[in-house]
Amino acid sequence: LQLPRILSSQYLQSSRGNKIPVHDEHLFIVTHQTFELWFKQIIHEVDSVRQIFADAYLEERNMLLLISRITRVSDILQLLSDHFLVLETMTPQDFLDFRKNKPYLQNGSGFQSLQFRLMEIKLGMTDELRVQYNQQHYMNVFFGEEKEKLKRAVSEKNLFELVNGWLERTPGLEANGFDFFDKFKCSVQAMHEEFKAFGEEIEDEDEKKEHLLEYKRGVENFDSIFDENKHNKMIAAGDRRFSHKALQGALMIYLYRDEPRFHLPFQLLHALMDIDSHLTKFRYSHTCMVQRMIGRKIGSGGSSGYLYLRSTCSDRYKIFVDLMNLSSFLVPRDRIPPLNRKTRRSLS
Amino acid sequence: LQLPRILSSQYLQSSRGNKIPVHDEHLFIVTHQTFELWFKQIIHEVDSVRQIFADAYLEERNMLLLISRITRVSDILQLLSDHFLVLETMTPQDFLDFRKNKPYLQNGSGFQSLQFRLMEIKLGMTDELRVQYNQQHYMNVFFGEEKEKLKRAVSEKNLFELVNGWLERTPGLEANGFDFFDKFKCSVQAMHEEFKAFGEEIEDEDEKKEHLLEYKRGVENFDSIFDENKHNKMIAAGDRRFSHKALQGALMIYLYRDEPRFHLPFQLLHALMDIDSHLTKFRYSHTCMVQRMIGRKIGSGGSSGYLYLRSTCSDRYKIFVDLMNLSSFLVPRDRIPPLNRKTRRSLS
Amino acid sequence: LQLPRILSSQYLQSSRGNKIPVHDEHLFIVTHQTFELWFKQIIHEVDSVRQIFADAYLEERNMLLLISRITRVSDILQLLSDHFLVLETMTPQDFLDFRKNKPYLQNGSGFQSLQFRLMEIKLGMTDELRVQYNQQHYMNVFFGEEKEKLKRAVSEKNLFELVNGWLERTPGLEANGFDFFDKFKCSVQAMHEEFKAFGEEIEDEDEKKEHLLEYKRGVENFDSIFDENKHNKMIAAGDRRFSHKALQGALMIYLYRDEPRFHLPFQLLHALMDIDSHLTKFRYSHTCMVQRMIGRKIGSGGSSGYLYLRSTCSDRYKIFVDLMNLSSFLVPRDRIPPLNRKTRRSLS
Amino acid sequence: LQLPRILSSQYLQSSRGNKIPVHDEHLFIVTHQTFELWFKQIIHEVDSVRQIFADAYLEERNMLLLISRITRVSDILQLLSDHFLVLETMTPQDFLDFRKNKPYLQNGSGFQSLQFRLMEIKLGMTDELRVQYNQQHYMNVFFGEEKEKLKRAVSEKNLFELVNGWLERTPGLEANGFDFFDKFKCSVQAMHEEFKAFGEEIEDEDEKKEHLLEYKRGVENFDSIFDENKHNKMIAAGDRRFSHKALQGALMIYLYRDEPRFHLPFQLLHALMDIDSHLTKFRYSHTCMVQRMIGRKIGSGGSSGYLYLRSTCSDRYKIFVDLMNLSSFLVPRDRIPPLNRKTRRSLS
Repeated sequence: LQLPRILSSQYLQSSRGNKIPVHDEHLFIVTHQTFELWFKQIIHEVDSVRQIFADAYLEERNMLLLISRITRVSDILQLLSDHFLVLETMTPQDFLDFRKNKPYLQNGSGFQSLQFRLMEIKLGMTDELRVQYNQQHYMNVFFGEEKEKLKRAVSEKNLFELVNGWLERTPGLEANGFDFFDKFKCSVQAMHEEFKAFGEEIEDEDEKKEHLLEYKRGVENFDSIFDENKHNKMIAAGDRRFSHKALQGALMIYLYRDEPRFHLPFQLLHALMDIDSHLTKFRYSHTCMVQRMIGRKIGSGGSSGYLYLRSTCSDRYKIFVDLMNLSSFLVPRDRIPPLNRKTRRSLS
Repeated sequence: LQLPRILSSQYLQSSRGNKIPVHDEHLFIVTHQTFELWFKQIIHEVDSVRQIFADAYLEERNMLLLISRITRVSDILQLLSDHFLVLETMTPQDFLDFRKNKPYLQNGSGFQSLQFRLMEIKLGMTDELRVQYNQQHYMNVFFGEEKEKLKRAVSEKNLFELVNGWLERTPGLEANGFDFFDKFKCSVQAMHEEFKAFGEEIEDEDEKKEHLLEYKRGVENFDSIFDENKHNKMIAAGDRRFSHKALQGALMIYLYRDEPRFHLPFQLLHALMDIDSHLTKFRYSHTCMVQRMIGRKIGSGGSSGYLYLRSTCSDRYKIFVDLMNLSSFLVPRDRIPPLNRKTRRSLS
Repeated sequence: LQLPRILSSQYLQSSRGNKIPVHDEHLFIVTHQTFELWFKQIIHEVDSVRQIFADAYLEERNMLLLISRITRVSDILQLLSDHFLVLETMTPQDFLDFRKNKPYLQNGSGFQSLQFRLMEIKLGMTDELRVQYNQQHYMNVFFGEEKEKLKRAVSEKNLFELVNGWLERTPGLEANGFDFFDKFKCSVQAMHEEFKAFGEEIEDEDEKKEHLLEYKRGVENFDSIFDENKHNKMIAAGDRRFSHKALQGALMIYLYRDEPRFHLPFQLLHALMDIDSHLTKFRYSHTCMVQRMIGRKIGSGGSSGYLYLRSTCSDRYKIFVDLMNLSSFLVPRDRIPPLNRKTRRSLS
Repeated sequence: LQLPRILSSQYLQSSRGNKIPVHDEHLFIVTHQTFELWFKQIIHEVDSVRQIFADAYLEERNMLLLISRITRVSDILQLLSDHFLVLETMTPQDFLDFRKNKPYLQNGSGFQSLQFRLMEIKLGMTDELRVQYNQQHYMNVFFGEEKEKLKRAVSEKNLFELVNGWLERTPGLEANGFDFFDKFKCSVQAMHEEFKAFGEEIEDEDEKKEHLLEYKRGVENFDSIFDENKHNKMIAAGDRRFSHKALQGALMIYLYRDEPRFHLPFQLLHALMDIDSHLTKFRYSHTCMVQRMIGRKIGSGGSSGYLYLRSTCSDRYKIFVDLMNLSSFLVPRDRIPPLNRKTRRSLS
């Protein structure tokens, strides 16, 4: 376990020059070291998952392993959120005493953690989606070997891309086969038409107007996936990420999850959402902790660390945001196109 | 415990008309019923705390009780956040099946929970700070006795106001006594002047410029509390809530927390922050759950439930936001004005 | 949601006769009511799981549902453990004030909760395994309709029995087919012989003795599953529960979990262990809370509530204790008998 | 933060000799390294708390600090329990693959963790209270510098002893002053006499017998604190730990906690109980994890690691077990001897 090395690595900056060390600096160091150890573990898992996915064809015997490792990542992230409850027992005055004038984000956490950046990149975070902190590219605070590691990570296929590719190959999407998406589109359109027809019969004018507005909303909502142009515009705007085909695959798995062959793929999608869910809660807990520790300084120019961190809790930072939003496109069970015999057999 | 009543109150809407009930509706009902029971408990605690505070003079023998009840509120809120992890095991398809066309927020949760509104009001949430949901005042969905309860709650002193009044009476603020704030202002100004003087000696022009910008930021930051006009403008803008005097009291307790008489007041401020911290995490977890369950529908006009809920996770919804931001105004330990003998004695 | 009923069911016993109610009684009531609501939810899930299992042949398309509902049960139990952290904020003095002379276990919790008993029974707890509390059968505190419910639950197939039956049908166990257990026995015996032979070569007498003791321990350990008589003796003693065949099935799924057909069965076993794991932690947290609230009274005869509760945290109360102990019978990967082609195909 | 050192300390034993490393060994290493980092943090806190206590007179201005550091210890322990949920995602087969024949307890966790032993010792665990594992003294697995550290820790005053000394000095215990314990004894005896007299009036013989048995139980229970001999016998048997005087002090703080001077002492006792509560839950979670990972091997002689660990979850391992049991000696509020004017003043 190499404990002598690990346990001799807590040097308190505040003790420099024979000063009495600030008691709580120890907590700050230990917490951040455990964060980094866990980040390393997450990277270990994500790398292994990426490797399994990288094969042209995802072997079915690997599904159990895949799901358990992805689940482990979100379990770790959930555990990490709770670390802030301990860190928050640090008093802001003590914190001020040992960090002196150094801004928090230069203290190894958040903006300057190499591994946190690697984790984000390997999961699928991209430059375009990031919010900049004081007009600064996140890579500019890294140098030498560290910068190389980041660049290499950017150049490799990330988990998002691999999942996207895998979803595109979902059985049942083939135009010359079951052609799921076309059938789904027809079903939704029929549903909308019935809804509209029902509305036109309404006598009360206000109610009728409201009903037709609702109809229009429904059509617009589904158009964002039916109309590939609209879909691509959303991608360009950073509001959607999956390719058109991958989104169809995800939706298909979602709707037909009771078919035996989709059991594990459905669990996999669920586990990916859990990663986003716990990562975003980790970010939010981090943000709350920073507010308590250093406040939200007001001053000319330069957003505060707090405001920067808060901006990373938005949907832009959710890797699998399309899975999170997938429920927007569910339909009542009796509107789901029935599988034909061939497809049903191939999915069982 | 009246269990027969409690346990016979889970009627599944989906079973109406002899239909096969949707399995997961039971989970939805039970989760929301436990939420409401806990909201009732929170209101029970907040009411008792408000009563203790309401006396002109807060008896010292009540401090322990006060802190333990406030802490309990945040413990409950923390527990409630974890409830969403269970609720998220509900499948969106099942959820769609039993709620049919009813929007989520009309289902007893969130926008329509009387007790959640009462809790917010009694803690100190006000109309001006709220974000509106589809141009609708939150009170408009309540009627009769329920509306009366809300109005009564609005008319009573809320916890925020009571804490504000208590902080204004903090010993040591008196202008003809220790006059803390004046001493603090002098100390900070001296600190800023030294910082500026140091900067003017810097030779490198860029570094000098950066240093002076930093100086300006520091001055501006503290001006927001030193200049009562600026303080009041921030209140008007919804960015600050405590009166000028109460903010001084909070800062004084924060800086002199090691004085015995401030031990329990300091714990009390800490406990109030925990309420905000856990309430905002509860809101955030709620928001994440809603995104997974119903997505983020896109459509003409009308913000989605998800977007509305997300907007309630902002600083506007933090009752004691000024405590959360108090660290902005900390100074190194050697800049804290020393207590004079008389004040020190009265605080021990 | 029937909130008016739910929220008007908190009558404080301590307020009887126009007395000032004890503040913390409200917390006691609310906590136990939420416990009972969650117990009802668990029973709802366990009943549905039992129904799915009850079919002669477990349909593969139900596996996903099955696993997600079993997982939900353990998620709820995990949440319930944390409830005790809130309940422990109650002061023992307050608790004493409202329960007066009534022993804790007569207060609706634990020993007298109908639903907790139903939950235990439906999961698979049996009379023989229970520890008695003051020579009293747990059923004796229930009457009329409640007693009937308990008897009915006892007479129905519980989850344990259903899982036992399902495991007995594990493909690959057939004596005239792959005959897993016989192959496994041979492999383990070979392993033991090699270990023994290695030991006989050791020159140092002490080391040799230790090695052969280790060998004997290993043989004895595996004999407890290889020798059906020993297995049955352990069942009779309450140390094991699965039938001999079912244990073989569980072990087979454990060892060959990477075969696609065993992915979901393996997850199912994992989820069942999680139920035991979280149920036993719930019991332990309950026990700790009771110690803090009422202590561990010393007195002539009659075990205290605390000691009774502590005894329910033992292995006797773990329904799937054999799964928990399954790791005792793992062997290194290269000792696992390789599947023959036919079996491999049928499992993929 | 010395991250390069920390992050280069995960050497997988299973990768020795150019073998393909076992994936899950990384998780095992990282989890145990974070455990050790947190143990170091706990020792850091306990040492600082012991130092504050060590002064002949505990300065009141240190109470806030004291409580917050003790609370932090229990917060950390609570966090550590949740680590096992992540560790349990390790598969037993993988675990077997990398630990090979090494028993779990020789793998750096539990029995062989120097820091865990230091933590126990510094909190107040003693040799006599420990359960032996295979007839082996825990110190025998340590050598050289490590053994010296343990011996030094044993020779220093532990937290238990320091708290015991502080409780003995509780104001109000003085025989020539308020003489709390004598007054308390009188009050309890009067209560018991009334209870007995009430019983003697009961007509129904069975009921009467039960009532008098209850009376006897009550007397016996309180005798265990009133009779110093009985108290000392319990200490000798390992069932009680505080000195007779210290127990009186704890009880006095418990009963008069609403007096301002007892607010912080009461919180302190509460925080000490939380340490025991979370430490024992940590032990229990550890035990459950070990059962899942390595089972409960059956074999001639030598208790399994699982059984050893389970024995450490008993009351013998609770440092402040007397605080946990204090509720046994509470009396209804109107039986608490009223403070005289002098004592009341000195406690406010």
